[in-house]
Amino acid sequence: MILDGKKIAAEIRGELRKQIEALRAEGKRAPKLAIVIVGNNPASETYVNNKLKACAEVGIEAVKIAYTADITEQTLLAEVHKLNDDPSIDGFIVQLPLPGHIRETTILSAIDYRKDVDGLTPANVGRTVQGLPSIVSATPRGIRELLARYNIQTEGKHVVVIGRSNIVGKPIAMLLMQRPYLSLPNMSAASLGDATVTICHSKTRDLAAICRTADIIIVAAGSPGLLTADMVKEGATIIDVGINRVDGKLVGDVDFENVSRVAAHITPVPGGVGPMTIVSLLQNTLQAYNEHSR
Amino acid sequence: MILDGKKIAAEIRGELRKQIEALRAEGKRAPKLAIVIVGNNPASETYVNNKLKACAEVGIEAVKIAYTADITEQTLLAEVHKLNDDPSIDGFIVQLPLPGHIRETTILSAIDYRKDVDGLTPANVGRTVQGLPSIVSATPRGIRELLARYNIQTEGKHVVVIGRSNIVGKPIAMLLMQRPYLSLPNMSAASLGDATVTICHSKTRDLAAICRTADIIIVAAGSPGLLTADMVKEGATIIDVGINRVDGKLVGDVDFENVSRVAAHITPVPGGVGPMTIVSLLQNTLQAYNEHSR
Repeated sequence: MILDGKKIAAEIRGELRKQIEALRAEGKRAPKLAIVIVGNNPASETYVNNKLKACAEVGIEAVKIAYTADITEQTLLAEVHKLNDDPSIDGFIVQLPLPGHIRETTILSAIDYRKDVDGLTPANVGRTVQGLPSIVSATPRGIRELLARYNIQTEGKHVVVIGRSNIVGKPIAMLLMQRPYLSLPNMSAASLGDATVTICHSKTRDLAAICRTADIIIVAAGSPGLLTADMVKEGATIIDVGINRVDGKLVGDVDFENVSRVAAHITPVPGGVGPMTIVSLLQNTLQAYNEHSR
Repeated sequence: MILDGKKIAAEIRGELRKQIEALRAEGKRAPKLAIVIVGNNPASETYVNNKLKACAEVGIEAVKIAYTADITEQTLLAEVHKLNDDPSIDGFIVQLPLPGHIRETTILSAIDYRKDVDGLTPANVGRTVQGLPSIVSATPRGIRELLARYNIQTEGKHVVVIGRSNIVGKPIAMLLMQRPYLSLPNMSAASLGDATVTICHSKTRDLAAICRTADIIIVAAGSPGLLTADMVKEGATIIDVGINRVDGKLVGDVDFENVSRVAAHITPVPGGVGPMTIVSLLQNTLQAYNEHSR
């Protein structure tokens, strides 16, 4: 069965729209997101515009704050503090990458974790790891939501995560291994988490043998065709986070054609995890609004 | 071979003493640790006194700040902020547990991560997970140091961690799985990290089969006799973090007598990981002094 991220993301956008309409009907203000962008990287411009558009669709107010590439770290830091203190802003993100003269970790660490709707600050990551209420970054939140919507249980399952990035591998491993402290707002399943998780990466020996013991494989390695059918147990669930361009075509890290014959559930690329990512940002913004706004 | 934590801890204390003497000989002040204790829990009193004594042995100045159990959360929070701002204090810890009317997470989250020598704040945990410079909490730091001192490589090895606590299981899994970004000061081995890590816990199915594939097993489950010889591959390394009292005797989570016949390296209880824990606090205090004091 194909796990249809595009369809699920559309469903969630519909739910968000209704929830925000209901808030407005009670006389409350709309949730508000600010997006800080520095310089004129065309890819960043596109991402930011897509995010603004997605906000508009569900009724989240969004404001773009643009700086030229020659902004100093100090000025950008002052903007972050201003947004931290602004009660009309529920959440904000600083679009990456930043120009080379600005230290990304310095900027990200300054963001108040309660407004960190990208979920990338050390404080939010630490809170997630410790099982405290937190904002989960877009891709892991999207994966968890996709599993939940298709009612794929993780308790006691063996999950193999391939890739150890800060934005995918590490946080999804932590989320699925933990006690299910936190049920996300709008999540249908209570039983995500409680999995036995193995984290694999470029130094892993005999990846194929480890994968063959997995009930769920999450591949986020950025390597087209990495996961082949002989590495997959009959009936496993495959989540493909890879986005690679091969001969002008978008492909994931999984040999979809052959693996889909063995797996019980599999995400396509495009149309799997990708569409869940922007919708996670919208969910995080509403979460920040619900938890902290007055 | 027995991994002798008692001996290694004594060696490290000797090294710390020399390093601090050298600082003093240069005319610099000694590193200074503050320990905040609330109420009169006898176990906490003992722990705090042991920590004060250990500091004195290596030349770390230590001050105990004691409050009665009826202190308000607000007053304790003000003390934390005062210590954060005090340039004469390099690091401080708030001894747990706190009385029930004080929220531990509120207090811990308020500690400046640069002075958080217990390594328990969300910001420090997040920094550790993201591979940023951070202070690692006592037990995982001690385990890493013990592996390093015995020159036990982890790159490409399969490490099975049993237990998913915030103070042992989760951080040691993260440290051993990561790229070795951070070499700890005074660490002999460059190649810790880069392991394939599986995190197991109470919901794990067929723990024995998973353990049998492990090159290194770290048991922190608090369950005497949990790890038996039939679960261990010939030549594996066994780190026993358990501290249990059975019939008045201190035992770990490992059936030491039988497992030690199969394992190549094994920590005893007592005298293995335990003695490394207090020494980690001393190392963390010197680290905070070196990185942030002026």
